[in-house]
Amino acid sequence: MLSETILGFGFKKNCMREIAAYGTKRKAEIGADKVFDFSLGNPSVPAPPCVEETIRELLSLDSTSLHGYTPAPGLPSLRRTIAKNLQERFGLPIRDDLVYVTCGAAAGLAICMHALLLPGEEVIAFAPFFTEYRMFTEGMGGTLVSVPPTESLQPDLDALAASLSEKTKVVIVNTPNNPSGVILSDESLKKLSGILHAAELRYGHPIYLVSDEPYRELVYDGQQVPCVLNYYDNAIMDYSYSKSLSMPGERIGYLAVSPRMEDASTIFAAICGAGRVCGFVNAPSLMQRVIEKCIDKTSDINMYKINRDLLYNGLKELGFDCVYPDGAFYLFMKTPEPDAEAFCRRAMKENLLVVPGDSFGTPGYVRLAYCVSPEVIERSLPTFKKLAEEYGLKPTSSEG
Amino acid sequence: MLSETILGFGFKKNCMREIAAYGTKRKAEIGADKVFDFSLGNPSVPAPPCVEETIRELLSLDSTSLHGYTPAPGLPSLRRTIAKNLQERFGLPIRDDLVYVTCGAAAGLAICMHALLLPGEEVIAFAPFFTEYRMFTEGMGGTLVSVPPTESLQPDLDALAASLSEKTKVVIVNTPNNPSGVILSDESLKKLSGILHAAELRYGHPIYLVSDEPYRELVYDGQQVPCVLNYYDNAIMDYSYSKSLSMPGERIGYLAVSPRMEDASTIFAAICGAGRVCGFVNAPSLMQRVIEKCIDKTSDINMYKINRDLLYNGLKELGFDCVYPDGAFYLFMKTPEPDAEAFCRRAMKENLLVVPGDSFGTPGYVRLAYCVSPEVIERSLPTFKKLAEEYGLKPTSSEG
Repeated sequence: MLSETILGFGFKKNCMREIAAYGTKRKAEIGADKVFDFSLGNPSVPAPPCVEETIRELLSLDSTSLHGYTPAPGLPSLRRTIAKNLQERFGLPIRDDLVYVTCGAAAGLAICMHALLLPGEEVIAFAPFFTEYRMFTEGMGGTLVSVPPTESLQPDLDALAASLSEKTKVVIVNTPNNPSGVILSDESLKKLSGILHAAELRYGHPIYLVSDEPYRELVYDGQQVPCVLNYYDNAIMDYSYSKSLSMPGERIGYLAVSPRMEDASTIFAAICGAGRVCGFVNAPSLMQRVIEKCIDKTSDINMYKINRDLLYNGLKELGFDCVYPDGAFYLFMKTPEPDAEAFCRRAMKENLLVVPGDSFGTPGYVRLAYCVSPEVIERSLPTFKKLAEEYGLKPTSSEG
Repeated sequence: MLSETILGFGFKKNCMREIAAYGTKRKAEIGADKVFDFSLGNPSVPAPPCVEETIRELLSLDSTSLHGYTPAPGLPSLRRTIAKNLQERFGLPIRDDLVYVTCGAAAGLAICMHALLLPGEEVIAFAPFFTEYRMFTEGMGGTLVSVPPTESLQPDLDALAASLSEKTKVVIVNTPNNPSGVILSDESLKKLSGILHAAELRYGHPIYLVSDEPYRELVYDGQQVPCVLNYYDNAIMDYSYSKSLSMPGERIGYLAVSPRMEDASTIFAAICGAGRVCGFVNAPSLMQRVIEKCIDKTSDINMYKINRDLLYNGLKELGFDCVYPDGAFYLFMKTPEPDAEAFCRRAMKENLLVVPGDSFGTPGYVRLAYCVSPEVIERSLPTFKKLAEEYGLKPTSSEG
């Protein structure tokens, strides 16, 4: 009498949140300083001062406009600001009438799937990928096709080519990647674009590339994140301010449809229709105005770089095998036993909380969210050392 | 290649917003004081001071928790506060674990339809009803069955009985009603409950009653809004703080599943699953905390009563035939010609902006949103008088 798919998603525990809840409980029992919680991607760096300042200023506005409805795709002034920002940063001819302000990147993805997918069609995602991709796809009666990564955790583009079919409607990329921190390179994007374009010609219908990029600003060592819309025309950018402005709970981001897409305005209309069907009236009005003022700001991203270096180097020295993360605030580590869940349970006994890669479609790994204070990382290293010794890992030099 | 239904909703203009946009343009052309805009249900009364005060206080909290993720169904403390509030006000055994905090009432309805409907199933709504009910239903492959009202614009329960079928999964009620302001009476709810319960027994499956009640606090003359969950067990309450706290742009409300529902926890799980599929991660975190503090407050509702009396009495005196609104901030008026859209166009020429009842599944009427300043109503009456005279209406006394 109910959809088994949707009911299943309701009963399915969110593994990360379960582990985090256990962490909260443990902290109360034994003291917060004795629990090393790397489970959740909740920013540890405060929002930039601009956020609080802007909220205070906005409170002097007329309450009925400040908290009133905005047009469904967002305040016109904010849509213009976003378009201009993208034009300036990426040299893209983004049009404000193709920008749709969302309640965050998850909302953007759900809306894209509602807009683009028909039952029986396929969505391709590169493992490791964010769990919810499956919900957004299967909730619409689509099928998620997972492409396993290369040995170095890069998207396997040859495997992509073999996974494409007549039924492929959408390909999702996530750059920088959650959970691996890998950035899609210029070279990969060129190859990806060529493969997809050839498939479009072969099958005679568009294949939409949805680029999920909430971690775009979280990159280190001067790394650049190439802009997907500069490589492929049938592309939609899905962005969120959750991480760059440290406000994931406020739910604000946008979708930008490439103006180079042949049927851009039709796809934009489908996005608007999908937004209505999902029950999105408008993105939170106060926060829309905050973004307009703070669009050029970020939280102190350097704090994450300090954490990345501390954790990556620490684990490498102990002999753990980690993917070097160029961006985001996650580290994806190969587990010293094949069963990542067993490793997680063992770590949990030491009050060290990490998430099995199985949640991201990639067994044999764990994700460590290093959006914590550097002290947590420092204090956790002896526990990692204990585990490394138990597993008989061989310490290495700190070159990484 | 795309869903015709969703694409259609994207291209379909929102009639109210179109008229409002015309109003904004006209105001710029001829002066705001010469346009009488009754098109939009955007509260005209500011949020109570508690909202601004609470936001200012909250800004002293740690930024990463204030703006951080909350659990998907809402902050535990807010869910408890909402449950307690409903227990105290309605004597209902509401359980906090059956409260799901939403991004407003539209989100709540969309989530309910995703949770409850299978393709081919039917949703019954009583005309006049909020346009988006159709989108939430048809977007899920369901069929919306509209039950026309009685002569006095009350829900026609005999017509409901005739509309129920094996396929009926959900019945939506909206009390007080947008656009008529009608409150579902104790008597109607008893009868409705009996009809639905009999149908459940006849068809051997539950029929869920979804009670959409964002206008619950907007009632006048000491009117009470009977609580639907006290009449029918398989019921879900859909609430929003948009109108009671004058913050429709902030998108915050809740779903409360009746604890008397036999499969309450299964339905709650389906709601959680549907929330994930629609892309709702959590309701805006700052606003969740605002609601926790301001749950007992409302905007100055009396302002709407002043408007209601002014407009209703004014129109009656001129000879217009109006439904007396006990609640909400809308007045539903019979048009003096059968074609409501023609009447709207005629009024528009006089810079008087009203919405045709066709948008609510009820031709022959127009909706006037009287969430405006009383001066707008006063200044509009000569224009209504002019129209009344052109249509040859007979002025009446002011008894109403």
